[in-house]
Amino acid sequence: MTLARPDKTDTTRQRLVIAVDAMGGDSGPATVVAGCAIFVKRNPNIDLILHGPQAELDALIAKRKPLRDRCTVRAADSVVTMEDKPSHVVRHGKGTSMYSTVETVRAREADVAVSCGNTGALMALSMIRLRKLPGVNRPAIAVLWPSRNPQGFNVMLDVGADIRADADDLLRYALMGASYARNGMDLPRPRVGLLNVGTEEHKGRAELHDAFDLIKANEAQAEFDFVGFVEGSDIPGDVADVIVTDGFTGNVAIKTGEGTAGLIGDLLKEAFKYTPLSRLASLLAFTSLQRLKRRIDPRRVNGGVFLGLNGTVVKSHGSADATGVSAAISLAAQLAQNGFNDKLAARVAAVLPTEDKTTEDTGHTQA
Amino acid sequence: MTLARPDKTDTTRQRLVIAVDAMGGDSGPATVVAGCAIFVKRNPNIDLILHGPQAELDALIAKRKPLRDRCTVRAADSVVTMEDKPSHVVRHGKGTSMYSTVETVRAREADVAVSCGNTGALMALSMIRLRKLPGVNRPAIAVLWPSRNPQGFNVMLDVGADIRADADDLLRYALMGASYARNGMDLPRPRVGLLNVGTEEHKGRAELHDAFDLIKANEAQAEFDFVGFVEGSDIPGDVADVIVTDGFTGNVAIKTGEGTAGLIGDLLKEAFKYTPLSRLASLLAFTSLQRLKRRIDPRRVNGGVFLGLNGTVVKSHGSADATGVSAAISLAAQLAQNGFNDKLAARVAAVLPTEDKTTEDTGHTQA
Repeated sequence: MTLARPDKTDTTRQRLVIAVDAMGGDSGPATVVAGCAIFVKRNPNIDLILHGPQAELDALIAKRKPLRDRCTVRAADSVVTMEDKPSHVVRHGKGTSMYSTVETVRAREADVAVSCGNTGALMALSMIRLRKLPGVNRPAIAVLWPSRNPQGFNVMLDVGADIRADADDLLRYALMGASYARNGMDLPRPRVGLLNVGTEEHKGRAELHDAFDLIKANEAQAEFDFVGFVEGSDIPGDVADVIVTDGFTGNVAIKTGEGTAGLIGDLLKEAFKYTPLSRLASLLAFTSLQRLKRRIDPRRVNGGVFLGLNGTVVKSHGSADATGVSAAISLAAQLAQNGFNDKLAARVAAVLPTEDKTTEDTGHTQA
Repeated sequence: MTLARPDKTDTTRQRLVIAVDAMGGDSGPATVVAGCAIFVKRNPNIDLILHGPQAELDALIAKRKPLRDRCTVRAADSVVTMEDKPSHVVRHGKGTSMYSTVETVRAREADVAVSCGNTGALMALSMIRLRKLPGVNRPAIAVLWPSRNPQGFNVMLDVGADIRADADDLLRYALMGASYARNGMDLPRPRVGLLNVGTEEHKGRAELHDAFDLIKANEAQAEFDFVGFVEGSDIPGDVADVIVTDGFTGNVAIKTGEGTAGLIGDLLKEAFKYTPLSRLASLLAFTSLQRLKRRIDPRRVNGGVFLGLNGTVVKSHGSADATGVSAAISLAAQLAQNGFNDKLAARVAAVLPTEDKTTEDTGHTQA
């Protein structure tokens, strides 16, 4: 992994900088600072700007030696809560740590932003302050999902930035998801699938057929392999690396998968407690089960990435612990190091020249 | 469980009769006949009509003593394959075992139909031959999903009969799903949830807000408890017994859940094979793990039920083994014994008088 500076960032800075919102997570700023400490130990060439109440953060940083020289605090006294409505935060959020975090990316003081806070508010603030990339109508949230593929995870988007997507949005999601798989997962030529209720070409909603044709027509230029329609069972499968869908369907799908995995995990724990023999078995299998747990541990891939904005924002899970926060910052660092956002912007721009934007909504420009 | 005859069936028959399509499953008629044999041993008061090639089925039945007096064969020489398009089967399917199976329910020779065949074709034939219930615009497929609830499973519908549903359809799904939970799972007052991307009332698509109001307005009369919006994580959860959604979202959700559960199962098997100690552990934990497997075994609850037609059709999984086929027939038997379809029809009729049908599509008749 090189540390070459991406082209369009502030070239007066010699080092990559990540903006971290210290507030808004379920377990408070101490956990976020602990995650930062894990990260800086492993990444000596990257600096952090922490956003939140000055005195509280100063005290937390003072306790962790590796952070002292690598981490500056940007004072922001108020906090966006999980209950705040996005529209309220857009109007009144200026003094919050979340606003301050996004603002450092807008001002190019930082290369990428990380927050554990309220997803809706973070997306709303990011859209208002960073603005959408030219050619992108609907930004998307992409997540990594445990899969049977060699890389161990698939990219899925949108999982909830918007509740609808037309054919043209779905083409953009394909481009953005493929770009993310290239830069975040080191897959040079990702396979892209379009989520539907069956793999036959005649199945599903009309906009999906339009999207199928659009994505197919752009496959060669965009340098991914389009595998066509995929089903829900392919999200954890091995036929595609990137699963494209609208934010309503994607959100329901990942929450159903998470809920089902959680139920199985709890039932497994119960099963191991059931008899003395099974309790002994759980001791003997401990290492193997820990390996399985790591394999599907959501903390390892913690971070939904907002795609389609002038700047990259990583949303860490609200309930993330220090390991999860560190994973989200590491993901942000990898994307920044690869100059991800400029590459993504170039991909979107290459497929649809801005002057064609007026005919774009018919979904036939590229067909 | 009583064996009282439902009101509207053929009262000249003294016993319940189940029509079984012997063909179209992945593992052939021998597996279906084996499933029938398991069923009749446990249910001495119910007879079967098997549909398929006479000589082949006669030979299979002759080998199984319990079936000889309880099972008649209805000759049908052709078979609907998994690849046949539903529209083709509707036009040319008359000589198939699937058509013949549905036809005995239409003619009231049987109380309920069971098939392992092509879902799309079975739904298309069922709609054409049985017709929709008055007041139902879109029939639905309901499945049982492993959950944290005391009954061990939740009802979810629609999982793929149609790719769209408006507010009025979603109200019908709530009524039909609640009726299914009452008669198939013995829950006198089911809790109904409407699937959305968040539980807050302002979230999600416009038709979901209309559906929310419609379902709420009908809650008291329909004798269920409406818990409002639920999320994907609640499908295997314990806040609702019945999850209502459109067939596109429902289909993606169950396939994502199935795929994720399958991935975890395979990784668990790998983990137990990894070291000699973990192999020993899997032996010690065998009974507990079998108990867990039974708890989430899809064969135990095998059977998607088609709701909203003049007659009940149970779709068994194409890959079902004898245990799975027997479970699907048992579910069909329980629904028939409870006079389920007449009760469901009465529920739908009570909420929306037929003369209001013209204004129904605005979604405001009941609000």
